[in-house]
Amino acid sequence: MATIKEIANKLGIAVSTVSKGLNGASDISADMRQLVLDTAVEMGYASKKMRSTGSRKVCIFIENMDYENIEQFGYEIIVGFKLSAARRHWDVSVVPTNLNMQTAEKFDTYMLKNGYSGAFLLGFTLHDDWVQQLSKTAVPTVLLDNYIERNNHVGYVGTDSYEGIDLAVDHLKNLGHTRIAFLNGSKNSMVSEQRHQSFVNSMAKHGLLVDDDLIAYGYYVPDCAKDHVPGFIRNGASAIMCASDLIATGVIIELQKQGLKVPEDISVIGFDDLPIASQLSPSLTTIRQDRTDLGKSAFLLLDGLIHNVTISKLLLRAKFIQRDSTGSCKRKS
Amino acid sequence: MATIKEIANKLGIAVSTVSKGLNGASDISADMRQLVLDTAVEMGYASKKMRSTGSRKVCIFIENMDYENIEQFGYEIIVGFKLSAARRHWDVSVVPTNLNMQTAEKFDTYMLKNGYSGAFLLGFTLHDDWVQQLSKTAVPTVLLDNYIERNNHVGYVGTDSYEGIDLAVDHLKNLGHTRIAFLNGSKNSMVSEQRHQSFVNSMAKHGLLVDDDLIAYGYYVPDCAKDHVPGFIRNGASAIMCASDLIATGVIIELQKQGLKVPEDISVIGFDDLPIASQLSPSLTTIRQDRTDLGKSAFLLLDGLIHNVTISKLLLRAKFIQRDSTGSCKRKS
Repeated sequence: MATIKEIANKLGIAVSTVSKGLNGASDISADMRQLVLDTAVEMGYASKKMRSTGSRKVCIFIENMDYENIEQFGYEIIVGFKLSAARRHWDVSVVPTNLNMQTAEKFDTYMLKNGYSGAFLLGFTLHDDWVQQLSKTAVPTVLLDNYIERNNHVGYVGTDSYEGIDLAVDHLKNLGHTRIAFLNGSKNSMVSEQRHQSFVNSMAKHGLLVDDDLIAYGYYVPDCAKDHVPGFIRNGASAIMCASDLIATGVIIELQKQGLKVPEDISVIGFDDLPIASQLSPSLTTIRQDRTDLGKSAFLLLDGLIHNVTISKLLLRAKFIQRDSTGSCKRKS
Repeated sequence: MATIKEIANKLGIAVSTVSKGLNGASDISADMRQLVLDTAVEMGYASKKMRSTGSRKVCIFIENMDYENIEQFGYEIIVGFKLSAARRHWDVSVVPTNLNMQTAEKFDTYMLKNGYSGAFLLGFTLHDDWVQQLSKTAVPTVLLDNYIERNNHVGYVGTDSYEGIDLAVDHLKNLGHTRIAFLNGSKNSMVSEQRHQSFVNSMAKHGLLVDDDLIAYGYYVPDCAKDHVPGFIRNGASAIMCASDLIATGVIIELQKQGLKVPEDISVIGFDDLPIASQLSPSLTTIRQDRTDLGKSAFLLLDGLIHNVTISKLLLRAKFIQRDSTGSCKRKS
């Protein structure tokens, strides 16, 4: 926890110049300001400054996730976060970001410069620059679906996949399905790994065989279905569980191309319960992530971190939603 | 969600009698009141009633856990819970319980009768009668260190053991220890299982051998040490990790009986960081559970459940606290 004087000493400049740099005065150069801010961050001044300003400003960084209309995954998360924040009188800025922005400036410097007391990061992947920096940040930060080890200032919010997937396997087994395929999202994602593990564990618990030919990693987009659905069919799948509703929409299209009917010939289950799930024909049986609650919980967690309650994980229940894309298995397995 | 009229119809009594039963009027018999309450609970009236009364009363049930003075495990948990509850203008009652009380009345009936909107359960073990009932309750309930599957009204709060145990193994390995023993708490406890798994995973991650002769389940009391410490010594342990500080105090006493010095001859690590940990001689290296934060987080979670945010798990970070009961390993392994 450095003082302004220590920063000045380190840089060999006047205390008043450091102060101007920290406060964004107009009469110092942009380069000098950046140097002051970077040094303040390096010396651990950042979090102290932000905790003492009393500014009630937090931000949501969002990357690689659609959120601009209610059909999209991020929309209700942001709504839920803003609702909870407003109730406690915090201002929320939504900042779309990208790799260029991330490499241009350190996370802590950005936060200090803009006077944010905390951040919620949506849609980042573990290899993103900022996520790399989070092992060392002193800025309270909440990550959706990402976990950082050994940093008390960073928490993880997400949906516990297991129960939802377990209820879905229950449902399929009760309908007579035994050859159940799983089309996952992208491989380098913590959530994909969790869903894979949940599927494998639940199948084992139900006494069902996990066949490697019926498990595949794709991407969180509909288009990945065409690479895997034909193989699943060849290998005798009577039901396909998907790691997202968007993947499931791709699977249904691909099945139709192959002349198969859902659910008469093959059952399909999604994940998320986006608005599109109930609008599809047939409507999609899926596992619901309550996105408004995810947003509310993310703020709860961030508020805890800002007040030094070192929560590391906050997980919501996944709910199984039965609709029309699943039916009795007619094949003999 | 039954109405008062439906309850009256089912029992074949007047609506006014049901109303008296629900509100505890003095002019109906205790038996009739109990019948009305039990029927209301069975018919799903309970939670509706409690959500609508606007009474801001919750309770803490505590069993099998000391909490009456600051030296004891439950004390700060209750303080933290009450602090957070008071800030949101909730009243908190602390209700010590026991198995007799649990079997005398259904959980939901008790909550309805007393006008509590939610509960926090401390110190219960999973085979207790009430925990069985919790699978079906509609009353928002938070459990410390217990998890109930598939009930959206029940959440779990606890400390994530893994990071703390992993930091402790780091520390011991850096001191040259390879023969590390683990004395766990009682076997029928979710927390014991988590700590066991964390220990095994961390040892494997550090490339250290997990020797079955160096792992034992005891109980969460000092006295269990004498059954296991002699075996650990015979099998060449140079360090003993314990699942609680109380177990560690028993281990240190047992080692002294055997003429061994801590940490010169053998290192000892506790878990919890109770006040006694820093008062022991040598002071105890341990893994801290922040109990005030556990209490605060339990209230956060309960408040979420009361407002229909279906949080299932909220976990805190465990912190590694280095003191004087650990030192360099002098044996050749």
